[in-house]
Amino acid sequence: MSKITVGILGLGTVGTGVVRLLADDPRFKIKWVAVRDTSKPREIDLSAIRMTDRPDELVDDPEVEIVIEVAGGIDRIYELIKRAVARGKHVVTANKELIARHGAEIFDLAHRNNVTVLFEAAVGGGIPLISTIQRGLQANEISSVAGILNGTTNYILTAMEQRGQSFEDALAEAQKLGIAEADPTNDVEAFDVAYKITILASLAFGRFVDSAKVIRQGITHITDLDIAMAPEFGYRIKLIGLARRGNGCLDVRAQSMLVPIHHPLASVEGANNAIFISGSAVGEVMLVGPGAGQMPTASAVVGDLINLASALRLPDFAPYFQPLIDSRESALCEIDDSEGTFYIRLETKDTPGVIGKLGLALGEHQVSLHSLLQRGVQREGSATIILLTHRTREGNLKRAIAAIEAQPTTIEVGLVLRVFE
Amino acid sequence: MSKITVGILGLGTVGTGVVRLLADDPRFKIKWVAVRDTSKPREIDLSAIRMTDRPDELVDDPEVEIVIEVAGGIDRIYELIKRAVARGKHVVTANKELIARHGAEIFDLAHRNNVTVLFEAAVGGGIPLISTIQRGLQANEISSVAGILNGTTNYILTAMEQRGQSFEDALAEAQKLGIAEADPTNDVEAFDVAYKITILASLAFGRFVDSAKVIRQGITHITDLDIAMAPEFGYRIKLIGLARRGNGCLDVRAQSMLVPIHHPLASVEGANNAIFISGSAVGEVMLVGPGAGQMPTASAVVGDLINLASALRLPDFAPYFQPLIDSRESALCEIDDSEGTFYIRLETKDTPGVIGKLGLALGEHQVSLHSLLQRGVQREGSATIILLTHRTREGNLKRAIAAIEAQPTTIEVGLVLRVFE
Repeated sequence: MSKITVGILGLGTVGTGVVRLLADDPRFKIKWVAVRDTSKPREIDLSAIRMTDRPDELVDDPEVEIVIEVAGGIDRIYELIKRAVARGKHVVTANKELIARHGAEIFDLAHRNNVTVLFEAAVGGGIPLISTIQRGLQANEISSVAGILNGTTNYILTAMEQRGQSFEDALAEAQKLGIAEADPTNDVEAFDVAYKITILASLAFGRFVDSAKVIRQGITHITDLDIAMAPEFGYRIKLIGLARRGNGCLDVRAQSMLVPIHHPLASVEGANNAIFISGSAVGEVMLVGPGAGQMPTASAVVGDLINLASALRLPDFAPYFQPLIDSRESALCEIDDSEGTFYIRLETKDTPGVIGKLGLALGEHQVSLHSLLQRGVQREGSATIILLTHRTREGNLKRAIAAIEAQPTTIEVGLVLRVFE
Repeated sequence: MSKITVGILGLGTVGTGVVRLLADDPRFKIKWVAVRDTSKPREIDLSAIRMTDRPDELVDDPEVEIVIEVAGGIDRIYELIKRAVARGKHVVTANKELIARHGAEIFDLAHRNNVTVLFEAAVGGGIPLISTIQRGLQANEISSVAGILNGTTNYILTAMEQRGQSFEDALAEAQKLGIAEADPTNDVEAFDVAYKITILASLAFGRFVDSAKVIRQGITHITDLDIAMAPEFGYRIKLIGLARRGNGCLDVRAQSMLVPIHHPLASVEGANNAIFISGSAVGEVMLVGPGAGQMPTASAVVGDLINLASALRLPDFAPYFQPLIDSRESALCEIDDSEGTFYIRLETKDTPGVIGKLGLALGEHQVSLHSLLQRGVQREGSATIILLTHRTREGNLKRAIAAIEAQPTTIEVGLVLRVFE
């Protein structure tokens, strides 16, 4: 059988891993690698591969059958992917932002050009998550998908918990180890999780979700105090991607939450990812594994590539791989209507009657208290109070928080976290 | 699009689940159900389906495109499946024994008839294990696959541990709950796990394994004492299916083992299944979920069916689904050469010098002792001794056990278990 000619956009960590995995594979020939800087020294043998800093060369080469996109980024790449698809090339991408933001258009264009766009590596690194939802569980109506989808923040939260580090120290350490990027915004502000849960929600529920509308709350306001207090209430703090059916709407979140300590997601540590899928027939299935890293991500990219290759010589096979997603957008649930229990950390003046006033503000907005802990005075004249509410509507909670913030004895409401359920 | 006509062999628990899942699916028409007793009352509406006690009618019907086999059993079914394949019908089966014992021949026949045989439900119930190994991780060289693959025995072991029950009591309870069958041999003697690990090994390593040659040790000799003692050494007892690369051979086992208490497999409880896959690129991935039961198993069967349906109108698609297994048989490792550490429970006469003699017998065969616990006298004149060895070759261990059994002070060597690693 003749070799399948591929071109690779990007030769960073993952791209290098892909070249490694394909090095001795007789099925593929890497003809091109497009990079930003062709003069940069590389740690792998590229003598048989053409290198270019003009990705159009690769995308326009009629010999290239499959374009592998591991460059990351968005605007330039979006145009290149569309161009590749329009030229009848299949695409394997690890780009979650691209799929989350432009999946609808890209899949539609792929459909019209009778080509395939695969993206297993975009979510969950080496864990075959996408194929599990798309293929393995397709006999199920899925009711929820919930997981730890970002290894960087899970590493930071685990370090804060195990070593009592502050967020800043744990982040600095993760940056030193190459686990967090120099600009960590994408991870710590949960943009990354928002893209990933958007993709999973679109696949699981069959309609596109707008990633910009996903509820997003990162880990930057979580202190070592919160990490230490959560177990007192029976929880651990995790950044969770959650998508579940509501009442005629979808509840989609990328949010730091308190996870019950005996829930399997609570015990996922370090840079691992885990996902919990509830289906109508199967019940609950969990997948755990490395959510990032050079070779795990390359494993997913090359897995897609081999999968594609084994169908490539079939006529008109592309529809088999086309994700079944309705192009109409999902209605997301009104956040105010959603119910939950909440953890609140606030700092108040250390004066008599503070607790009573808090209780009144909560009660006026139909929020009732489950438990309350007051920490010894931290600063002269101030006290830290931690509350756990009973079940309430999120709108009520917001109004109660606003009322508390307006009280003259309140210095600051430092953190409000939802309890995962 | 016209409906795909299917016939179902068997209408037990899983078959009923499959009919339920397909009831309102516009893609499929169930034309036939073949059962043993057509007069038996059924809990589902079968008014639109022809029922027969002559499965040939179904298999020979030219309208039937896909045969779903959820009857179980082997000889009769094996002939029926071959006949269906020879008539150009695709097959979806949940029959692990069939695939483990006759997979080589069936896949070869399917290949020659250009049809597909899918079997996701044969291992791991609702967990998409087969597709994960076959598709998701195909960029990897897999080094080992290890898991809890039988929910019945895991339920029994969990009950023994949590409630201090004897094996007999836990089995009787599982039978009462419908978790264990009236004749539990297949589960408790690890035949079921042997079939399942045979299938996983064949897929993961690309060569057929003979299930009859798999090392097999069930749970019938495990007592409540063993369950209670294992944690003293840092372990829990689990029935493990294990397949891993040895030195030019495969080590394949369906064996009760001591699993280190912090290993994720140790904490899988009740009727759940879990599988741990180690791949060259991905590292370690774990999948957990319901390993049996009506709807989880039906979920896997119907998942295969939908998967097949979405390719069915492509010309010559069957090779895409053909498992890549070399028809030559894998060489299994010589058990005597394999290294490990071992747990030994024995009963001796309660006379002085017994421990010294044990130590000598072990030492003479190059087995050194890691730890030893003597339980208070259980019967008049006898003592129960529990040993954990250091790492040794299994052949040495066997010879040491034989020497201990030959000692006049030995009443019985009750149990030898391998430590999972």
